[in-house]
Amino acid sequence: MIKVGIIGATGYTGIELLRLLVPRQDIEISVVTSREKEGLSVQEYFPNMRGHLELDFAAPDTEALYACDVVFYATPHGVAMNSVPALLDKGVRVIDLSADFRIKDIALWEQWYKAKHSCPELAEKAVYGLPEVYRSLIAGAELVAVPGCYPTAIQLGFLPLLEQGLVVADRLIADAKSGVSGAGRKAVEDYLFCEANESIKAYGVTGHRHHPEICQELNFASDEEVKLTFIPHIAPMIRGILATLYAPVKPDLNITIEHLQSIFEERYVGEPFVEVLPTGVVPATRDVKGSNKCQISVTYSSNTDTVVVLSAEDNLVKGASGQAIQNMNIMFELAETVGLESIALLP
Amino acid sequence: MIKVGIIGATGYTGIELLRLLVPRQDIEISVVTSREKEGLSVQEYFPNMRGHLELDFAAPDTEALYACDVVFYATPHGVAMNSVPALLDKGVRVIDLSADFRIKDIALWEQWYKAKHSCPELAEKAVYGLPEVYRSLIAGAELVAVPGCYPTAIQLGFLPLLEQGLVVADRLIADAKSGVSGAGRKAVEDYLFCEANESIKAYGVTGHRHHPEICQELNFASDEEVKLTFIPHIAPMIRGILATLYAPVKPDLNITIEHLQSIFEERYVGEPFVEVLPTGVVPATRDVKGSNKCQISVTYSSNTDTVVVLSAEDNLVKGASGQAIQNMNIMFELAETVGLESIALLP
Amino acid sequence: MIKVGIIGATGYTGIELLRLLVPRQDIEISVVTSREKEGLSVQEYFPNMRGHLELDFAAPDTEALYACDVVFYATPHGVAMNSVPALLDKGVRVIDLSADFRIKDIALWEQWYKAKHSCPELAEKAVYGLPEVYRSLIAGAELVAVPGCYPTAIQLGFLPLLEQGLVVADRLIADAKSGVSGAGRKAVEDYLFCEANESIKAYGVTGHRHHPEICQELNFASDEEVKLTFIPHIAPMIRGILATLYAPVKPDLNITIEHLQSIFEERYVGEPFVEVLPTGVVPATRDVKGSNKCQISVTYSSNTDTVVVLSAEDNLVKGASGQAIQNMNIMFELAETVGLESIALLP
Amino acid sequence: MIKVGIIGATGYTGIELLRLLVPRQDIEISVVTSREKEGLSVQEYFPNMRGHLELDFAAPDTEALYACDVVFYATPHGVAMNSVPALLDKGVRVIDLSADFRIKDIALWEQWYKAKHSCPELAEKAVYGLPEVYRSLIAGAELVAVPGCYPTAIQLGFLPLLEQGLVVADRLIADAKSGVSGAGRKAVEDYLFCEANESIKAYGVTGHRHHPEICQELNFASDEEVKLTFIPHIAPMIRGILATLYAPVKPDLNITIEHLQSIFEERYVGEPFVEVLPTGVVPATRDVKGSNKCQISVTYSSNTDTVVVLSAEDNLVKGASGQAIQNMNIMFELAETVGLESIALLP
Repeated sequence: MIKVGIIGATGYTGIELLRLLVPRQDIEISVVTSREKEGLSVQEYFPNMRGHLELDFAAPDTEALYACDVVFYATPHGVAMNSVPALLDKGVRVIDLSADFRIKDIALWEQWYKAKHSCPELAEKAVYGLPEVYRSLIAGAELVAVPGCYPTAIQLGFLPLLEQGLVVADRLIADAKSGVSGAGRKAVEDYLFCEANESIKAYGVTGHRHHPEICQELNFASDEEVKLTFIPHIAPMIRGILATLYAPVKPDLNITIEHLQSIFEERYVGEPFVEVLPTGVVPATRDVKGSNKCQISVTYSSNTDTVVVLSAEDNLVKGASGQAIQNMNIMFELAETVGLESIALLP
Repeated sequence: MIKVGIIGATGYTGIELLRLLVPRQDIEISVVTSREKEGLSVQEYFPNMRGHLELDFAAPDTEALYACDVVFYATPHGVAMNSVPALLDKGVRVIDLSADFRIKDIALWEQWYKAKHSCPELAEKAVYGLPEVYRSLIAGAELVAVPGCYPTAIQLGFLPLLEQGLVVADRLIADAKSGVSGAGRKAVEDYLFCEANESIKAYGVTGHRHHPEICQELNFASDEEVKLTFIPHIAPMIRGILATLYAPVKPDLNITIEHLQSIFEERYVGEPFVEVLPTGVVPATRDVKGSNKCQISVTYSSNTDTVVVLSAEDNLVKGASGQAIQNMNIMFELAETVGLESIALLP
Repeated sequence: MIKVGIIGATGYTGIELLRLLVPRQDIEISVVTSREKEGLSVQEYFPNMRGHLELDFAAPDTEALYACDVVFYATPHGVAMNSVPALLDKGVRVIDLSADFRIKDIALWEQWYKAKHSCPELAEKAVYGLPEVYRSLIAGAELVAVPGCYPTAIQLGFLPLLEQGLVVADRLIADAKSGVSGAGRKAVEDYLFCEANESIKAYGVTGHRHHPEICQELNFASDEEVKLTFIPHIAPMIRGILATLYAPVKPDLNITIEHLQSIFEERYVGEPFVEVLPTGVVPATRDVKGSNKCQISVTYSSNTDTVVVLSAEDNLVKGASGQAIQNMNIMFELAETVGLESIALLP
Repeated sequence: MIKVGIIGATGYTGIELLRLLVPRQDIEISVVTSREKEGLSVQEYFPNMRGHLELDFAAPDTEALYACDVVFYATPHGVAMNSVPALLDKGVRVIDLSADFRIKDIALWEQWYKAKHSCPELAEKAVYGLPEVYRSLIAGAELVAVPGCYPTAIQLGFLPLLEQGLVVADRLIADAKSGVSGAGRKAVEDYLFCEANESIKAYGVTGHRHHPEICQELNFASDEEVKLTFIPHIAPMIRGILATLYAPVKPDLNITIEHLQSIFEERYVGEPFVEVLPTGVVPATRDVKGSNKCQISVTYSSNTDTVVVLSAEDNLVKGASGQAIQNMNIMFELAETVGLESIALLP
């Protein structure tokens, strides 16, 4: 029985962790914390948890966290870095869904997150929790930085192309569309139903915090320096990210769609949560709603010598809580798919 | 291992049966049929099934059905009655999600469904699959008629009041709101995104086929004759039914909200899939999305001597496929909740 | 040229007033106020106003309001009552979209709105702005209290029945479904896209502020005392209210649908914004989206002796800003339909 | 009084033409045709037209069309080309919203539309109805081919860059997101509410019919040959197109955002329906819902030397029926903005 703590459990990634963990027989939810809801019963706050979990929200500084085997941070950035060191000292492993430990270049982190990082040495030590790249490191990790939602979809789409050196690395474009839950459960005017429904728009066009994270990881996979134009959009749906990725093929490469298809299929053979779709089939975010899958299709426009990759995931599952649990499964030597095999809710 | 067949598996209740059954270790999906998609692979047709099920749609008259332990009909009305007798003859148990065997009064059935019933004797013999009423009969049933989506939500809300004789039985009102999936997966103009979105309307105001089914069952529970005004509405959401039920309290009854609350709690104590919410808490369909629960709250307007019951379910789960599986679990002496314990997808 | 001021123009009824008034040649928008956005340009705040209006938000206490011919209050309740007297003193006519002057019984108002009313004498003097009832009084009014969104749809549906004494007045039921914009533009968690989408729920089941307003007006129209069970619901759409109204026919009345239809048609003959639909046609909120119409259909369930009325409006137009302008047109002896004739946006 | 005929008025562009034309005093809707709905009253079919238009659908071959001053085709491709010649012969001017006369290269048209073109000489003669490019030709045109919805948004975004020769013309990317109404009012499974809601996906990734139309026109504006990667997406909303356009700046050009902004502002100065947003402001499709505007913003990523243009329109207005009427206004020497000045419906 693995004893689990969840810090900041009142947001969307928090409730998603609970949805996925509570039914498991091998997991005990020992403590969930919330500064604002301390003392409130979880099932009163989350009506879908009625009958599933008898637990009240504890204060974030509860000692009970030290008795956990693993603690998830489902907090905004800037929270985890302050209390993770104490947990690690007590031998508690940590899976951080926030951005605190994703960026190795601390100056870059501080520039984008507009804060002083309180434990740069842990950022150095943290393992980036993308199992399709770092599976073996994750297994032994004490601290995992779970990738952001956009970075997951975008990396999984670009990696095979960069690893094989097929595309012009400094001319990448990622046009990503996210459901509104990506913005979290903040009472902000922009995310009101009447503001977000029946509309689509871009945001963060002059720079989004996920940009340095994506570039850091793509650069690790690429011989040439990566440059990326990344435009995120908000679409009128609750869940889902679709990343449409554009990459010019390197000059004089004689590429075919069959070749591309096989490169993707080989890259992800055996991966339980990445599905390379047959040529001609495109992913829709509804097909992965509630599941931990990333569905990818690759196409090639010979007219413009451009590879177009479509990468779809549920931003709250493979893009956050599901991936966090996938990491936990690896860390605790469980089957990687335990608790993550449920089928997408369609329709 | 229970061998399962599903007839008419290309609709929304069909895919929902697959979503709930495929992950189970104690179930083998032996055959799924579809007249239109015969020969097509299920996972090609339902992208959420990729990697989960290796099976092609068979023709509806396949002999393979006779080798099943149980066959689900996820077909429009008028289909099951033609082939169920042959299955029963072979010893195959049948769970029919359509309306063919729900109504005991065959003349009434023929009037509403505008067809000649081909096996009235089976309608007589069929068990109405509402476990909260017929659990013991279901256990031994060879043929179960799964209740309709509206009837489930409405009966669970009215039953405690009628069984206790608290309300004026011939002045009941059910104002029900359903998601669009209740209309099935038919390419009909009315259910196009641009027709159904951003709008709410009533339909079937002069008579809906679920009316006689609801009245039949409520009358079984009531000493006085039930008369019901039933107005269904279509709301711009995929899943969910909310039934708002109005019943005048019998004259001179000195009723209190505490009394009502305890009547509902006692009626459903131990029921795994009916949750009576605390006084003052109202259900929202999102809180049961994807789950087999029906959440109910009861309120009392002393000013008008009217009991108002709110009853919420996912029309595709407790209102159809989940309830069908709940019946199967009972029929095969499994724990009633097996495969139905997943938590609602929120948000 | 009528000089118009709008107080509290940053909410949904405020922007809707602007949408309807700005294109008019006979109207000059002299001043719009907002405490929070003072100094900001209207078209910067409302991107749909770009190129249509050159004006900055002024402070709410600007003297410029005194130079207006008419001032609209698009404020929360409790604001208008404090500054309306000064405007009236200066000869400015006032149209209040809030609840401050709708209720004649001040004690009742104070009970529901949990505040001390600062000018009861004006509440007495104010004309209730439902043109279909008070047209001639509106023409000469200095202060108009525009009906609430629910009260408009519900009154228009019940009035013909009560005026004719056809139904049991103390057993009325109004089951109303509203779009989310009815909640206003408040950054509140409940109205976030991810909370409100894909769900329907009731609220205010133990009492809603529109209840006393509806009862006050229905009682004026009824010989017998009105008692009403009113359950509002929030549906996942931006605009629209559908009220489903239930009224038992008085015993021994030999009523027919033809009779009911003619009563409704005669009641609203010549009304520019109330459309009685032909028997058998039901309204959908999409059919009145953006228009000032209320579409009504009446049906009769002989089995239960119950009249069912369906009443649909756009809550921001006929339920608020459009009706306010209809009042203004009457007050200023303009054609009642000026600026309100645009056709609903479908789809 | 201009006498107008509309052929194929039962689809979304047809009802949108009626919504915009019926309220006008200078227009008489003489005839609307529909093969399927012949004899039915328009207001029975379109409930939003109740009280606005007394007219029945006529058969498509009605002689009444010959008495019109102008006839709009709101038909699928392949219809107009068969009957336009007869209309032109009678001196009736024609505005075709379909694709029949947009492409000058008939072989290319026949390849994409998989049909034999019946009057190539008219395709040659037809004026492409993008007023921002062809205003003076439109004024004298007998036959106008109204641009497609995607082509409008995409051309307006790319034109300033190509006309100035700032970008690498053969590396253009258009990632476009459309509401579901772009698919028309066809009872097709893919566009059912339960299929299209809560999801986003790409389609036509190996080629979309609007591609040759866009390239034809962009090539007219560009000195270098244009090559375009065009990926359309379907988003879960009724109306709206957002095109996100990517263009690499030519090497060694020392470009600034200020320069780009001024190029766009100068290009569209005086254009009544193209709004260049201030630097830093991005368009959302809701801000143009129901209006004839295209809102454009331009940004520059110096890191990747890429210009990103965001172009938003209502696909049924500026992308179809509104633009058709803008053409009509020009053809009949009316103010170009007549009947098109209404403000977007927000929220």
